[in-house]
Amino acid sequence: MTDSMSTREDSLIVLRDVLRCFAAARDWDQFHSPKNLAMALSVEAAELLEHFQWLSEADSASLPPATHARVREELADVLLYVVRLADKLGINLRDAAVDKIAINSSKYAVEVAKGSSKKYTDF
Amino acid sequence: MTDSMSTREDSLIVLRDVLRCFAAARDWDQFHSPKNLAMALSVEAAELLEHFQWLSEADSASLPPATHARVREELADVLLYVVRLADKLGINLRDAAVDKIAINSSKYAVEVAKGSSKKYTDF
Amino acid sequence: MTDSMSTREDSLIVLRDVLRCFAAARDWDQFHSPKNLAMALSVEAAELLEHFQWLSEADSASLPPATHARVREELADVLLYVVRLADKLGINLRDAAVDKIAINSSKYAVEVAKGSSKKYTDF
Amino acid sequence: MTDSMSTREDSLIVLRDVLRCFAAARDWDQFHSPKNLAMALSVEAAELLEHFQWLSEADSASLPPATHARVREELADVLLYVVRLADKLGINLRDAAVDKIAINSSKYAVEVAKGSSKKYTDF
Repeated sequence: MTDSMSTREDSLIVLRDVLRCFAAARDWDQFHSPKNLAMALSVEAAELLEHFQWLSEADSASLPPATHARVREELADVLLYVVRLADKLGINLRDAAVDKIAINSSKYAVEVAKGSSKKYTDF
Repeated sequence: MTDSMSTREDSLIVLRDVLRCFAAARDWDQFHSPKNLAMALSVEAAELLEHFQWLSEADSASLPPATHARVREELADVLLYVVRLADKLGINLRDAAVDKIAINSSKYAVEVAKGSSKKYTDF
Repeated sequence: MTDSMSTREDSLIVLRDVLRCFAAARDWDQFHSPKNLAMALSVEAAELLEHFQWLSEADSASLPPATHARVREELADVLLYVVRLADKLGINLRDAAVDKIAINSSKYAVEVAKGSSKKYTDF
Repeated sequence: MTDSMSTREDSLIVLRDVLRCFAAARDWDQFHSPKNLAMALSVEAAELLEHFQWLSEADSASLPPATHARVREELADVLLYVVRLADKLGINLRDAAVDKIAINSSKYAVEVAKGSSKKYTDF
């Protein structure tokens, strides 16, 4: 992931294709219903959360190396399930994310949302 | 997200940069501790899960258009928090995901994992 | 937990009191902010969920004994955090649950909700 | 929920019985597989969590009345699914909770756990 333009395949495409292959080789498509993948995604998100549950916010920003390494793995797991679930549902993740940012931009207009953590329904 | 090589910026980089800008414009960095972002990620994963909780696995694979549209938004939200949290922790997501796939390949070798949904600790 | 009237202390009170004592003995109140307890509760709920993620609905109703034992422990963990968080927030759980059932009864009136898994906002 | 001995039915029994009746009247047993109930429980735990995600730990201990009222409802929802899932799995919640406290007592012996938020596997 470099900051410069590149001729590499897009990360989200690479991961999608590798995961397809990974599941096919293990005959795992039978388990990968969207329902089950959404569960697995939620479980991985909680495994990530577990590392933070007793930390102060400040400490969460400067994790010891061993914790950082485990958090990196859990975050990767979450991403992998996001990619896999999107693939199973025929969702183009890049487009979906760009569309959602546009929605968020109108829900959270700078002039009302600045410095506030309120939900848009509470403005 | 095309299937061909491209000179476009990588999706994960584009999203990271847009989210940085989005947060800066709203003065939201004060709320975006890794602890809080991990919570928000988990909450979004559950909002995604909610759409599947009463569906059969078969029905989860053929969502009605309105549900599919909402699931697409929730999945985008999860991805956006994954990207944001990785940025705050200085994690290169592409590298982390590739590394995790390598780990999974050895935990779930094809010959033992084929057709099985067991956890690797139960092999 | 017998089905007959009893002069035993109510379970929710017993658990609340034991957990207070448990935390006090370990000097854990410093970690038990409602925010942290809500995170821990969510993490335990996901550990419970993990046991079900690759099971069919039918198989989830007839767990092997070893899985059942682990699910029993995870469910207990969730309950313990529910009780602890309620205590920290000054919430009487029995009253809260009874009140919520009353709300659900009007959201999901028998005549409209019968045989349907729709959310009340979709009636 | 009084602090004195009582001849009232135990809360966990009352709730179990009311929820049985509630589901039967709505013909909801068809949706209430343990798998689905575990999902619903996890979703409710995240709805609870959502109220805390941007709060400081200190602020989470003194919620504004409107937030407290919503948190009370979400916590009740979690408890109701805990009770319902336990019923479907034939688990006596009081016994399970007491057993789990005994396990925790040995995992987190006072002399090693005092003042520490470490997981027992890290002692």
